[in-house]
Formats: sequence, structure tokens, C-alpha cells
Amino acid sequence: MHPPLIDVPLPQASRLLNHGPTVLVSAAHGGQRNIMAAAWAMPLDFDPPKVAVVIDKATFTRQLIDASGSLVLQLPCAAQADLCFSVGNSSGAALAAAGDDKFKRLGLATFGGKQVQAPLLAGCVAWLECRVIPWPAVQAAHDLFLAEVVAAQVDSRVFSNGRWQFDAAPADLRTLHHLGGGRFVLPGQAVQGQMLPGLQTRPAAA
Amino acid sequence: MHPPLIDVPLPQASRLLNHGPTVLVSAAHGGQRNIMAAAWAMPLDFDPPKVAVVIDKATFTRQLIDASGSLVLQLPCAAQADLCFSVGNSSGAALAAAGDDKFKRLGLATFGGKQVQAPLLAGCVAWLECRVIPWPAVQAAHDLFLAEVVAAQVDSRVFSNGRWQFDAAPADLRTLHHLGGGRFVLPGQAVQGQMLPGLQTRPAAA
Repeated sequence: MHPPLIDVPLPQASRLLNHGPTVLVSAAHGGQRNIMAAAWAMPLDFDPPKVAVVIDKATFTRQLIDASGSLVLQLPCAAQADLCFSVGNSSGAALAAAGDDKFKRLGLATFGGKQVQAPLLAGCVAWLECRVIPWPAVQAAHDLFLAEVVAAQVDSRVFSNGRWQFDAAPADLRTLHHLGGGRFVLPGQAVQGQMLPGLQTRPAAA
Repeated sequence: MHPPLIDVPLPQASRLLNHGPTVLVSAAHGGQRNIMAAAWAMPLDFDPPKVAVVIDKATFTRQLIDASGSLVLQLPCAAQADLCFSVGNSSGAALAAAGDDKFKRLGLATFGGKQVQAPLLAGCVAWLECRVIPWPAVQAAHDLFLAEVVAAQVDSRVFSNGRWQFDAAPADLRTLHHLGGGRFVLPGQAVQGQMLPGLQTRPAAA
């Protein structure tokens, strides 16, 4: 059974990544699939929403992204810290050579996306389906992929009214933020910034 | 008086940004300077360390970066939530036209960097001095800047032994993670991921 998922309006999709969570990157092509961890992902634009993510050229996921032109960024939650660490420190290529994959090995449930073929991992708290915006020279030089978000869903227990609502949900549903070496920090206290006297607000960028 | 700052070995500089903090971007050129907020920044490589950051072409900071080829990413802390929100919602260009700037208006203390001209804002908890890696087409199409980190410093009260140590420091020194609309979340509980049975560890990427 899925928790109650809701579609995120595409112009709000950047809010899923604003606060810097670690993501799991999944991809599929030609009957093969893989999933890996990536701490280096961020929004790139609001509308249409775009993202940037670093995908090492040594990874099997990279091969599947290159072949399919699409990927899914999903946000693991605190309950999945071991899963996140494990898929981030194991080789999909070695398993694929034996006709196996990480999903089967760990008994991971997935569901189908709305726009792309890559599997969506159940138990995460948000999913961004993405199509690669080709920048071959950037991909080759920096392992950096730019992609447009073409569908976004979120677990409504922890994101509603266009905002993360960590305070109102079980701690197990909080996003993971990688400190290094498989150590993560969870979102804690929230604070609201206020305009200081001396500067005039302007609506656009700074 | 500065808190005790320590140099971060460059191959460890990516750890400052791994967990997804909001940054303040400062730049200077020809006697002018500015500082703005950016939630969209991430590491791009380990060694030499590189970063990626989105800088809107409408900003005055962008003009100064384009002219100088360098910038500083600094990590504001909880004590600076109002400052972060304020410099992110005000126009440096309007002030510069009047011979003024955000630092003077808010009475902000700065100190000099080791490698670049941009001012380093006092009271932040980490500073990454960066030189732009020119990708003019990417900058033009996506407002995305890639840069090499050429010096990094951190407040040793909250980062030591190569790691953020949020538990051991005052909450006021925690990094800010933007949820949207000037609302931030602070790092809270830490969790350590463990390898699940069923997958074999490999040292490289996934």
C-alpha cells in the first residue's frame, strides 16, 4: 500500500530540493534498472522546473541514463538511512552481469512513473521524474547532468500546501542530508527569516 | 574578534556543502561589492574541489562575478536567518547606483580572503573562495556557474576532524536550509547508515 501521494504542480517542484536533501537516482533501459545515492543534486530553475545532479561516469546508473535520456530523483527518508547508504555503496554493474539488481537483492518495492521508465522506489517521500537536457561536454567534463522535471509526486503526510511540514509528521519521514561516510542529519527546528531595517525589499533576485 | 577559524584541506571542502545548506554569494570588482543568498548550490567534485551554483542574470552579484571571475560561497548560520533573508530580498544594483552597498546599510563586518577579492562575511560558519570555470553557454542558458574552490575556512566550533559537529555546538551556529519564502530548517538529529545484508560493499561509486 502506498501512503497518500499527491502530484506537485510543476512550478513548485523546486521546493522539494531547496533544502538540500540527499537523493536516490534511479534509471532503467532495455530491461535493466539501477538505483544509486547522490548527495550532489539541486534545483536549477522554477518553471519549467529543472535540476542539476552529479552522476559519476563509473556508475551503472550513468549507463542507463545515457541510454534512456531519463532518470528519477527520489528523496529517501530517515527510515531508509540504511537503504540509502547500501545502494550508495554497492555496484549495480556487478549485479547486472549476473542478471540481478539491487531492487531484487534488497526486496525493494517500486511503482511506475507517469512520464519516464525508471522505477520509483516505494517508501521515499518525494519523486521527481526527469528528462536529461543534453550537455554532452558538461557531462563528460564534470559528470554533471541537467534535466527537466516532467512529473513530481510527494508523500502528503510530510509535504502539503506547497511546503515541507516536517514538524507535523513522524520523524521517520524526514529527509536525509549527507554529512559524509554514511552519516546523515535530519531537518530539525524551523526558523523564519525577517527583513532587517536598512534594506528595501524587492520581489526579484538579489 | 573572529571565532577560531581553521583552514579546511581542499580535498575535504566538498564536505562543507554535502548536506545542502543555503549559501550567501559575495563578489567584488572595481571598488564595488555585493552579497546575495542562493539556496541552489552544491559540490561538483572532490579534488580539486569544485562547486556549482545558480546565479540569476538579473543580480548585481552576477555582474561582479562576470567582471572578476571569482566569488565566495559562505554558509550563514541560524543566528543570521534575518540577515540571509534580507540580503536575498534586496537589490545590490539599486544601492550601488547611490554609492552604497548592503554591507554598509546593515553594518556587516567582513574580512579578506586568501585567494580572491570578494569580501568574506563575518559571523558565517564556513567560507569557500572560488574561481569561475568558464562555461559561457551554460551560464547564459541556465544561470549556472561552475567554480573551483581555491581556499576554504570553517568555524572550528562547529566543524572539526573533517566533519560538521552540530551536536557539540550552540544551535545558533547551525547551517540554514531553505524551505521557501524565507523559512529555513536547521540540522537536527544525526543518523548513521549501515550496510544492509544482500549487497556487497564496494569502495567506488554506485
